[in-house]
Formats: sequence, structure tokens, C-alpha cells
Amino acid sequence: MINIAIDAMGGDFGEKPIIEGVVEALKERSFKAILVGDPKILKPLIPKNLEQYIQYEEAYEVFSMDENATDALKRKDTTIYKAIELVKNEKAKAIVSAGHSGASMSLATLRLGRLKGILRPAIATLMPNIKNKTLFLDVGANTDCKAEHLFQFAIMGDIYAKELMNIAKPRLALLSNGEEECKGNELTKETHQMMKQIPNFIGNAEGRDIFNGEIDILICDGFNGNVILKACEGVATAIFQILKREVKESVFAKIGALMMKPVFKKLKKHIDWQEYGGAPLLGVNGCVIISHGKSDARAIKNAIFQAINFSKSNINTLIENELEKYNA
Amino acid sequence: MINIAIDAMGGDFGEKPIIEGVVEALKERSFKAILVGDPKILKPLIPKNLEQYIQYEEAYEVFSMDENATDALKRKDTTIYKAIELVKNEKAKAIVSAGHSGASMSLATLRLGRLKGILRPAIATLMPNIKNKTLFLDVGANTDCKAEHLFQFAIMGDIYAKELMNIAKPRLALLSNGEEECKGNELTKETHQMMKQIPNFIGNAEGRDIFNGEIDILICDGFNGNVILKACEGVATAIFQILKREVKESVFAKIGALMMKPVFKKLKKHIDWQEYGGAPLLGVNGCVIISHGKSDARAIKNAIFQAINFSKSNINTLIENELEKYNA
Repeated sequence: MINIAIDAMGGDFGEKPIIEGVVEALKERSFKAILVGDPKILKPLIPKNLEQYIQYEEAYEVFSMDENATDALKRKDTTIYKAIELVKNEKAKAIVSAGHSGASMSLATLRLGRLKGILRPAIATLMPNIKNKTLFLDVGANTDCKAEHLFQFAIMGDIYAKELMNIAKPRLALLSNGEEECKGNELTKETHQMMKQIPNFIGNAEGRDIFNGEIDILICDGFNGNVILKACEGVATAIFQILKREVKESVFAKIGALMMKPVFKKLKKHIDWQEYGGAPLLGVNGCVIISHGKSDARAIKNAIFQAINFSKSNINTLIENELEKYNA
Repeated sequence: MINIAIDAMGGDFGEKPIIEGVVEALKERSFKAILVGDPKILKPLIPKNLEQYIQYEEAYEVFSMDENATDALKRKDTTIYKAIELVKNEKAKAIVSAGHSGASMSLATLRLGRLKGILRPAIATLMPNIKNKTLFLDVGANTDCKAEHLFQFAIMGDIYAKELMNIAKPRLALLSNGEEECKGNELTKETHQMMKQIPNFIGNAEGRDIFNGEIDILICDGFNGNVILKACEGVATAIFQILKREVKESVFAKIGALMMKPVFKKLKKHIDWQEYGGAPLLGVNGCVIISHGKSDARAIKNAIFQAINFSKSNINTLIENELEKYNA
């Protein structure tokens, strides 16, 4: 059975939604959860019939959201540190954490190490589009990138999409301010030329292409990825806020909104990141799934499923092999 | 009476929506429109009672959307070239064009020149937020920027917001991947330090802050501005497409959607860029309003109002004076 280390106390809402997510996941898939945290707090939350699938790793400190990621290495008694160590010591195949994402990332990079040839790990996230999902990376790990970094993100994304999204020929694109090859800033123009070597590269894509179902993977630096991700969340939030406000003004609209409730629910489910689980950190020597701090049980459950699928795949070796091809 | 040069034939849909916009604008405000294009085509579109407010400037070529902006300078018989010349020769105070935005920009920069001290002009656009509007620049003029460029965009945005959006103390922010001063890429970290000199600077803002009404002006480079703008359009389009698709599946939802129609209409109006007219090109020696190629009559009307307000203001002199303060 596969062992998954769970940072059981690192999220914004404490251990409750995380353990609920573990319990939900155990009902659907077979794995062993190593809960990293205070067993006295965690044990009472586990139903008797699932106890056999649970192990505990004691850790009594939580790396808090307002701490500086660079301090993570010194805080050896935190849940996130100990969870990463479980992977390092091969006691677990993967880790899921809803804690401080910067800490997860730097601990993973420093303690697990990078894959052979990888210059910089990247955080990949799944964005809903009108047809399916778009894999979008980097979304925050690397604010200043060079072309060779973006090129490596493309290699990693390509393999992730093939292996874990089951897309035989993923449409791989580079984010730019125009589709034409000549469009872009200095970084993307240079990256474009390098990415031409990758058979699945279909060229530049614009911001709107994240959502129209025309591409499967979009590559950008972590600064762009982060600001776009948050801008898009902002648009969706604003649209629903304005709708709500306007609906309140009219009885007709209120009734209409009630009748449309199932539709709104479906839409929300479709665009809700909680459905998609967490964001895999690609390029480190192991499997690290970074979940949103505000993850609910469903998000944690989906993140665990991602971790299981990732661990069962051969993706890290495939990435190393693929990179070697281009270096040769 | 103020003279406004109108590139009458440059938009995606030809002269019709543009002349309609001019006619609508003339019904509400007093100005003289100099229509740049083929008078034989344009004259029949003007109602008799408005003829006294119209002048024609002959131009028989249109700079097409798939031409390269760098060729604009050689195409001296295009509507956009001749419209810019009207401002250069002081026959018009401002120009509105829905044509090739790159051509408008490069012609404006090269033929009108930059304001004293300005290194790079920037395109500013108004984004709807849940309360009002956010001025967002640069959205496409400059793909590779240095900190001093962004600093100057901030100065220009600050003055535009004060003078033309009537905000006494605009909340000026810098786009970054986190609110903390330490967050950002190399460019934004350096820019942050420079922007601290500007009294209205409130610090970094994230992508979501464009829409939550917490800021009035957001500064970024043209690459980021462009990709964010298009990503946000993409989210909104996707949300409405998914809604439409789901509504079709249920009779209840269809009725509900009908009852909510006025609400959807209001929402659409609120988030529709056509309401906001065009994007002023800040930093050139004159007033240039760049409209969307797909502008309808309402968008053109609003762009003309922007042009009138801009021309009546003292904003270009104020920008020059303000810049001088910081250079001193």
C-alpha cells in the first residue's frame, strides 16, 4: 500500500478539514495516511474502522503563514518539515500540505533536492476552461526566470499532462501578448525559439486562451502566473458579487436566481479550485502536492488522489530522461 | 469649439459604428468632428442638422490590422496617419482611433513626440471594479520595462486619476505577487522603492485588487498588463458561456434566466469595456484615445467624451511639471 504523508495541521483552518479530507479519501481509494501532527488531537478525529490505514508522526509545531519561507529549514519540529522528512527517508511516497506554500517549496527543494538537470522546480495548477482543464505553470515558485527555466517548465508540464491528465498530445503553449511569433517580451521571444524543439509546442497563447479550451498547457514565469491567477479569481468573485447585489434589488430577479440555483451551483463547482485538489510541485525529487491554505475536505481529498496518481506514475524519471535528450 | 480628429475608417467594422458614435456624441456635447477618411463615403452618413459640426480630411487608405506597426510611418495616406497630422499641425486638439493600436501608438510617439522627460508613453485603460473603476497601465505599449519607466507610468496615472477621474487622493498601487514590500520580481522590487516617493502610493497590490475596489490605479509593465487584460476577458467570457450552456439544459433555469435578464444586462453593462470608451495614450505631446477595434457607437461616443475632457484639462503640462519635481 502506498504511504502518503499529510501535513495534518498546516492549513488556515487547522486539522479539521484536513482530517475530514483524509477520511473521505480513504473511503474511495486504498492508501496509508501518515498524519504529521499532534496524535492526541488527531486520533479522536479518525473513525474506528479506518484506524488501520492511519499512522502518526509526531510534530508539535506549525509553520505559520506569516513566517518567512527562508526560516523553514531551521524549524525542524514543524509538521511541514517532518512531513517532508518522511518522503526524504522513503517512509512516504508523497506529501500533501495546505500549509505555508513557500515553506513547502523551499523545504522540498532543499531537503528532497531537484531532479537531475532541473534548474528550478515549478508549481503547476489546473485552471478550469470551458471544455476541461488547462495546466498552468509556473504559478509562484519563480518570480525571475530565464528562457531555460521556462523551457524546463514546458518539458515538465508536457510530461505531467501526458502521464496524469491522460492527454496523448497535449497542446503546449507559451503565454505572450500576442499569438504571432514576433510578439512577446525579450524573455518570451527567446523562450519561444527554445520551445520550438518540443514537438507538442503549438506557439504563443494569450491570456484568454487559458479558458477557451484551445490549449492544454500554458507556460509563464511565476510572477505572471501568480498575478494572473489572482486577477482571474478577482474577476470571478466580482461578477458573483455584482450579481448578488443586483438580484437583491428585484423580487423578479430573486425568484429567477432561485430557479437558476442548480445552474449556478454547477458553474461554481466547475470553476472552483477546491474541485481540482492541489498544485503539484514539479521538478523535485519526490511528490509534493501544495494545497490552498483554505482547502476544505473535498480539496484535500482531491489533493490526496493527485498524490496517489503522481506516486504511481513514473513522471519524475520521464522528466529526467526527456531533459537529457535536449541537453544531448 | 474644440476640434477632435476622428479616424473614421480604421475600426474592424468600417466607418458605420464610428460615424454613429460621432453623431451620438454630437447630440450630447459641443465639439467639431474632423472626420478623416473618404468624404464620399462619410457624408451620406451625417444627418443634415449636424453638418455644421463636421469637417472632412481626405484620406483614402486604411492601415490594416495585420500590417506591422513599424510600417505606419511610411503609409502617409492612411486615415490614422492623417488624423495624427491634424493634431501635430494643431488643427485638432485630440484624436480618436479604433484602428491598429500599435500604429496609433508609434505614430503618436514619433510624429507628436513625447512629453518633456517622458521615456516611454503608456496605454492606460479603465477596468470595472465592484465599486467603480480602476485605472490600469501599461496595457500593451511596453513589453520590456525598467523601474524608471514604471515610475513614470505611476506619475502619469496619478495625474490622470486626479484630473480626469476626479479622485482627490487616488490610491496608487504597484502590481506584484504579494502585498508585502519584500514580494515581487527584481523589477517590481526596484520600482516599489522608487514609487515610495509618490505621496499617493499605497504599496503593492495583487491581481484581485483590480476588481475589489481597494485601489484606484494599478501600475505594471505592458506585457503583464496585456496578458492580465486578456485573461480577465477570458474568465468573464467563459463564465457566461458555461452559464448559457447550463441554462439550455433545464426549463426551470431558462425561465429563471429570463426573470434575471435585467440583472444580467446591468452586470454586462457594468463590466463591458464599451461603456468606458477608449484607452488614453499617456506621455505623448497631444491627446490620443485608442479605441478597441470592435468598438460600437457607444464606445466611440465615450471615447470622444474622454478626448474632449482630456483636451480641456491641463494634464500634459501637469505631468511634465510633476516629473521635473522628481528629477530635481
